[in-house]
Amino acid sequence: MTGVSLPRKELFDIPEGVIYLDGNSLGVLPKGAVERAASVIQNEWGGQLIKAWNTAGWMALPQIVGNKIADLIGAPAGSVATGDTLSIKVYQALAAALKMRPDRRVILSDKGNFPSDLYMAQGLIDTIDKGYELQTPAPEDVAAAITKDVAVVMLTQVDYRSGRMHDMQAITKAAHAAGAVMIWDLAHSAGAVPVDMAASNAEFAVGCSYKYLNGGPGAPAFIYVRPDVVEGIKPALSGWLGHDAPFAMELTYRPAMSTERMRVGTPPILQLAVLEQALYAWDGVEMADLRAASIALSEKFIHEVETRCPQLTLASPRDPNVRGSQVSFEFENGYAAMQALIERGVIGDFRAPNIMRFGFTPLYLDEKDVVAAAEIIEDVIGNDIWRDPKYNIVSRVT
Amino acid sequence: MTGVSLPRKELFDIPEGVIYLDGNSLGVLPKGAVERAASVIQNEWGGQLIKAWNTAGWMALPQIVGNKIADLIGAPAGSVATGDTLSIKVYQALAAALKMRPDRRVILSDKGNFPSDLYMAQGLIDTIDKGYELQTPAPEDVAAAITKDVAVVMLTQVDYRSGRMHDMQAITKAAHAAGAVMIWDLAHSAGAVPVDMAASNAEFAVGCSYKYLNGGPGAPAFIYVRPDVVEGIKPALSGWLGHDAPFAMELTYRPAMSTERMRVGTPPILQLAVLEQALYAWDGVEMADLRAASIALSEKFIHEVETRCPQLTLASPRDPNVRGSQVSFEFENGYAAMQALIERGVIGDFRAPNIMRFGFTPLYLDEKDVVAAAEIIEDVIGNDIWRDPKYNIVSRVT
Repeated sequence: MTGVSLPRKELFDIPEGVIYLDGNSLGVLPKGAVERAASVIQNEWGGQLIKAWNTAGWMALPQIVGNKIADLIGAPAGSVATGDTLSIKVYQALAAALKMRPDRRVILSDKGNFPSDLYMAQGLIDTIDKGYELQTPAPEDVAAAITKDVAVVMLTQVDYRSGRMHDMQAITKAAHAAGAVMIWDLAHSAGAVPVDMAASNAEFAVGCSYKYLNGGPGAPAFIYVRPDVVEGIKPALSGWLGHDAPFAMELTYRPAMSTERMRVGTPPILQLAVLEQALYAWDGVEMADLRAASIALSEKFIHEVETRCPQLTLASPRDPNVRGSQVSFEFENGYAAMQALIERGVIGDFRAPNIMRFGFTPLYLDEKDVVAAAEIIEDVIGNDIWRDPKYNIVSRVT
Repeated sequence: MTGVSLPRKELFDIPEGVIYLDGNSLGVLPKGAVERAASVIQNEWGGQLIKAWNTAGWMALPQIVGNKIADLIGAPAGSVATGDTLSIKVYQALAAALKMRPDRRVILSDKGNFPSDLYMAQGLIDTIDKGYELQTPAPEDVAAAITKDVAVVMLTQVDYRSGRMHDMQAITKAAHAAGAVMIWDLAHSAGAVPVDMAASNAEFAVGCSYKYLNGGPGAPAFIYVRPDVVEGIKPALSGWLGHDAPFAMELTYRPAMSTERMRVGTPPILQLAVLEQALYAWDGVEMADLRAASIALSEKFIHEVETRCPQLTLASPRDPNVRGSQVSFEFENGYAAMQALIERGVIGDFRAPNIMRFGFTPLYLDEKDVVAAAEIIEDVIGNDIWRDPKYNIVSRVT
């Protein structure tokens, strides 16, 4: 089967005059989301009340959504559980991984990792309080740091600032060769680059669904567990919906016999329903096609911006094979410049201290958007528009 | 100021022909919820995209909702953080409490507690793996079990099956006298009975918002921390939104200087917005009035049911002072009888092995509802309607 052609802009509701290059932070609104939410609220919650857990299929929704995400990351059905936030899923994966290597004391990550992943590791280390150590070398030094002291290697595949991409296969292989467990954070991978969890052989992956998957603000997170290890895991966050028989109300926890044991509490039905709706946009999309489109857009963008704006320095890898679906530039006045761009409809984001970040989402972006964005960047930078003091008022940056 | 008169049925959207006695499991639909969700999705997410975190006030929403809940549980502004699920909040409170009493090894709960609370304690105990012990005496034996070995007493105030209510003041006092930390689970208390966290002096409380607070399926949970202890807490689940400067992207966790440190990941904006909408129904409600109405409804219900149905045995305390806002009856064929009731529009729920549970929510129930429900119960029980085999098909019970 050949995939559908990209982009599929007709599936999304994007404001007139906006070129949205921030789908790596919060994806756009899929059509049908409002109607789906309204139906869940009015017809299911309002009309069926408590019965809706069965009659409207709420009980099954986390698994349905998990299986759709599994499809997008090369994971088998039943191996992905949804719910909670990405930080919670990081904690679960880390706690499980440490139990799998009880004689080792090092958690290896890198200093390019998203801070919350590192914070969650720090919190777990403090909670266990048995001399665990979090190591965060530079990303390019991670492979060399995988020693036989390392219990778990925990990395975000695509760097949130630069877009630099770790080699999932090679690092997982190195981790396993050293006897370590591997956790991948797919926050900037799922829906952005082809991921083959099964082929990677990594034990765990975690991710969020509000970026490239367009699940909406605060959409639930997910966790993948390699099927052959799941039954050995005693979840740290052992909530009732990860119990083998949640409604038996037993006094002792017994984990479910699948990745469902990584579920915790009552699932956020409204967010899950909207996320499920958003995932329809992926029907028929071949990840290879998406990747080809992503690279074409990114390469075009780099070419256009570098040609027009010598003031900007590429902060992402030049080689598209080691770059995710975003492009970052360094610019000393990046904060002000980004505010000026946003005012002109080119929405990217800024990451301290000096990174202007642009995400490429081939589901709803085409080459015309990229060229138009580059023209506006040229105007803002080349004509010093960013110097207007109004762009330097720092509000809370998301 | 005197409170508004109850019920306020006009604020809710309840199906015709339904007498809903399960608001202690999933509250009803507040009017305005659909419109609020649609606006958040279409205008805020769709129209403002990533900017909505600031322009639509999403960043502030968890705190706004937390302060509204604080009002309902006698807690000061700023002392309640929202997000995640109740099970996660239990874990956070427990982990923090154990750190406050490093030389003690007992977590004291009771076997009437909601199983997920016990499961979370078990998961934490396994994670720390330093010989902690979870004790679960019968509810009436808890007070006597508070010894100087107890690090933390963790109880659900209102028993989810029987409605029996612990004496918050007395048990907290006993816990503190023994040097233990106190955690209250308010799942069946918030919006159901008057709660005065400040007066209780308990260090922690946790709760959910989809029961009496009508926040919708999977609505976010909350955690209260007594203001004088919050700065000593190093959160176990140390996510970026509990960081003092989440957007500074520091590599090391530094907790926020308030209960906000108990936040973890990106908040579920759709659920939070609907919950905020739901909380408007509490504007002007005096908890003393609500309690009086709740007791009147419950007493009337007990009287009507006992008069009409000698086959049912009251499983809740007869004294309303030690009973929450629910009434449970034991009936051997309770499962089938509840199915028959639900088919007739009287929605309560069933808790194994033999509990028929009815919740009383004075915001949207009046005496007429209670009498009408009792009449239908009389019909189902007195005329053996529950014996129809169709009511004995066990589907997944929520």
